[in-house]
Amino acid sequence: MQPLYEGKAKRLYTTQEQDVLRIVYKDEATAFNGEKKEVFAGKGELNNRLTSHFFEILEQAGIPTHFIERVSEREQLVRRVTIIPLEVVVRNVVAGSLSKRLGIEEGTVLETPIVEFYYKDDTLGDPLVTSSHINLLKIATSEELKQLSDKALRVNEVLQPYFRQNGITLIDFKLEYGKMADGTILLADEISPDTCRLWDQATGEHLDKDVFRRNIGSLTETYQTLFNRLGGNTQ
Amino acid sequence: MQPLYEGKAKRLYTTQEQDVLRIVYKDEATAFNGEKKEVFAGKGELNNRLTSHFFEILEQAGIPTHFIERVSEREQLVRRVTIIPLEVVVRNVVAGSLSKRLGIEEGTVLETPIVEFYYKDDTLGDPLVTSSHINLLKIATSEELKQLSDKALRVNEVLQPYFRQNGITLIDFKLEYGKMADGTILLADEISPDTCRLWDQATGEHLDKDVFRRNIGSLTETYQTLFNRLGGNTQ
Repeated sequence: MQPLYEGKAKRLYTTQEQDVLRIVYKDEATAFNGEKKEVFAGKGELNNRLTSHFFEILEQAGIPTHFIERVSEREQLVRRVTIIPLEVVVRNVVAGSLSKRLGIEEGTVLETPIVEFYYKDDTLGDPLVTSSHINLLKIATSEELKQLSDKALRVNEVLQPYFRQNGITLIDFKLEYGKMADGTILLADEISPDTCRLWDQATGEHLDKDVFRRNIGSLTETYQTLFNRLGGNTQ
Repeated sequence: MQPLYEGKAKRLYTTQEQDVLRIVYKDEATAFNGEKKEVFAGKGELNNRLTSHFFEILEQAGIPTHFIERVSEREQLVRRVTIIPLEVVVRNVVAGSLSKRLGIEEGTVLETPIVEFYYKDDTLGDPLVTSSHINLLKIATSEELKQLSDKALRVNEVLQPYFRQNGITLIDFKLEYGKMADGTILLADEISPDTCRLWDQATGEHLDKDVFRRNIGSLTETYQTLFNRLGGNTQ
């Protein structure tokens, strides 16, 4: 069976239900727009479990997501949406590209969280875009953009304290949204150590894909540590 | 006499009057954050004349600028301001970095002009910044940012028809603003073929610094042609 869509970390398949898709999490990790690439046995399973867990937490907090259920080690069922081609990034602490862009030291705590939009386009390298650019590209109206920003900040309001009570700082994270056939906007894609920066509160240890990007640790061990810290198999 | 400040294209000196500075236009052209550099005899004089002319047009249209008067071939007197470290870019037609960022063909006409802000910092390469970044850097308040955007669009409303009636399309331009001691925001810096993209309406010929950036013509001849097209010595 051919996937409907194959991304860097997941494959998407249709199901017998028109409005339901099946996601299969791959073991591949990529960074720097696919320039760095490696396979880590067990990564797909961990990210499937972690994403499912985070989406359940968000659903319980009243945030609508595409998530239906985890159906196997690597598989999820989700609602079919058309992905809005924006990476919606929420930041609580300066790190990564924000640190480089503005020349502010990594680890600087932001007075208030900020939201950024990046245009999902690999050939362009997912560039930062302003609301004017988004309007120009006809990706979203100003009203929809405000919705996306508010929704993303709401996710932060749920996840930040959740991680904090587990001794982890939610530094930043990337969300993707999709539209259902009726126009409803749902949180989609994944939330995992591939898409979040998570630092141990006490030691500053990176519990996310930066261990792979920066060659500072084992990806599988790090993701397993995060999984265990958040309750492991009991979740 | 030491300059108060030396930029890539101008030197700034104090005068006997506390609130008045003297600008001397240099013959140097630079591009790509100073990586490409060359001296063109006559450039300083042309840019001094052109900037003075544009600032006079804006003043006549009721737009407050730092410009007082041109006092010699290469010199201007201006009001002393503290420059706000933002490049305020207005675009009518897609070109340059916008074309590269969004993958839209150069020459695509925008339905409405857009305003972008770049953080004036050579070591960072003058990165694009959003209003959140600007707030975070404490460069300007949201209210001041709205003012800058409105003021820049007003400049466009004056200059775009002015160029049009001279057979030239104002593709985009970069402005800088400064604050006087009392907090008043004034248009500052320069407006010249160094800071505007200007295309001949009929032929598409570039009448701006892109001839230097892209090695597609003689800078001095191009600036002289522009000067002549806009009325030359009679201005």
